[in-house]
Amino acid sequence: MDLKKYLQERRDLVNRALAVYLPQVRGPAFRVVEAMHYSLFAGGKRLRPILCLAGAEAVGGDAGEALPVACALEMIHTYSLIHDDLPAMDDDDLRRGRATCHKQFDDATAILAGDGLLTEAFRIMAEAAPRFSGREEALLEVIHLIGQAAGYQGMVGGQMLDLMAEGRTITLKELETIHRLKTGALLTAAVRSGALVGGGSRQEVAMLTSYGEKFGLAFQITDDILDVEGDAAEMGKAVGADAKRRKATYPSLLGPDEAKAWARRIVDSALIDIEPFGERAAPLRELARYLLVRRT
Amino acid sequence: MDLKKYLQERRDLVNRALAVYLPQVRGPAFRVVEAMHYSLFAGGKRLRPILCLAGAEAVGGDAGEALPVACALEMIHTYSLIHDDLPAMDDDDLRRGRATCHKQFDDATAILAGDGLLTEAFRIMAEAAPRFSGREEALLEVIHLIGQAAGYQGMVGGQMLDLMAEGRTITLKELETIHRLKTGALLTAAVRSGALVGGGSRQEVAMLTSYGEKFGLAFQITDDILDVEGDAAEMGKAVGADAKRRKATYPSLLGPDEAKAWARRIVDSALIDIEPFGERAAPLRELARYLLVRRT
Repeated sequence: MDLKKYLQERRDLVNRALAVYLPQVRGPAFRVVEAMHYSLFAGGKRLRPILCLAGAEAVGGDAGEALPVACALEMIHTYSLIHDDLPAMDDDDLRRGRATCHKQFDDATAILAGDGLLTEAFRIMAEAAPRFSGREEALLEVIHLIGQAAGYQGMVGGQMLDLMAEGRTITLKELETIHRLKTGALLTAAVRSGALVGGGSRQEVAMLTSYGEKFGLAFQITDDILDVEGDAAEMGKAVGADAKRRKATYPSLLGPDEAKAWARRIVDSALIDIEPFGERAAPLRELARYLLVRRT
Repeated sequence: MDLKKYLQERRDLVNRALAVYLPQVRGPAFRVVEAMHYSLFAGGKRLRPILCLAGAEAVGGDAGEALPVACALEMIHTYSLIHDDLPAMDDDDLRRGRATCHKQFDDATAILAGDGLLTEAFRIMAEAAPRFSGREEALLEVIHLIGQAAGYQGMVGGQMLDLMAEGRTITLKELETIHRLKTGALLTAAVRSGALVGGGSRQEVAMLTSYGEKFGLAFQITDDILDVEGDAAEMGKAVGADAKRRKATYPSLLGPDEAKAWARRIVDSALIDIEPFGERAAPLRELARYLLVRRT
């Protein structure tokens, strides 16, 4: 399959759906919606939605049915970027080559834009109920697992740990916990929720969840490698930021060669998880392989 | 009925449930959970959960069944207080007689604690799915309407408008819009979601929604009056804050006497909405009457 073409088509599909779920409103509180829009349409890769749609297709489900959940995942991801970029958190001015939300608007608006996107994520999933007529409990399970992955047991907890770890020496085990919560949990939830929406069996959902966990770990290792070796212009953000903040990373703890080798082993293991799905898992297979050659 | 005793019993019931939904964890991200706890158990009146339970009972439903939704409403209310108190927003140091979350912890932890509570609210509602076996669509409708009331079309939008209005002269109509979104929407959603969980008919839900809207408006008018006439020690926060910030309020726009008379007329109208429910709506009746004599 042509991964580049596939990703472009999926990104377009997700972007069209997001534009419907978050219309440009002219209501009284237009400023916060403008800020939500600004960050939601800042040129993201739409990786989480694409993983969700691919998870649904791997079990023979319909990608269209998974779109509200896919869009909710992107809203949650975007909210987390907005809040993480705030001066009180990571204090970043640049994101995807553009001013961060609080730089473009102001801190208060950015806090509210994040709150608004997080809330919308759950609202649009619940609103999709009529599409799940007769199997509403699958939708409720998805809402629950995404809430778990996004909250203090997942992403919020991971960001807390990350802040607590800054400036002090941490172990490889601690680093893994941080990333498993901060980015791994939502990436895993993306694949898992897709599999559930697609009507996968318990065993299928378990295999795809295992794939998702490995995908999340390999994603973070390669992310850290990019921060050392990546190209600032291509990535649209400053590189070397982790080193400047003296943040522990996989290459800094393991050395760059060992980090790359480890990422490769994890991707290989993820590919074994999805072997039983055959051709239906081709996108998931290509996405995992892509992690090893990604440049952004 | 003895309203004071009723409120105490309901507060205890809600507090016990909240302690189960948000256990004191000893996990790695304990700091954010500690902050969530700190604010969630800071002595709130639990008005939104109590309205939700009373809404369920008014239509002959079981209050126990509505508990997860009631607790979710309190989590959303608490998150909004934490974020509104931040230096970038209203910059308040004191809340319910204690240091605000960012004063007790720090800004980053407070942002994450708010994010965590908002996320948990949706998670615990979805987790309640087994209690709604056979009528999951009612639970999904509740999740949807609470998301709508909390997001940019409701509370988040109201806070944005409130910030945009600071320091400039606004009309009574603008003030009403701000409050309808900022506090009215969630109070209305509390009663409405209770009525839905309790299995109310469309007509019953509509009548209770109308009651909720009027309750929300009367609540805000009396809140503004308390800010002028209330006792700082009883309220656990500084009074006169609105005037100091030159914020428009109902007493400042209408005069204190006219504001009080208006609150009374609105409460009378709310009482008419719930007349058809008879004795089952006694708590809602007493709660509305209480607004006119509240001191905190």
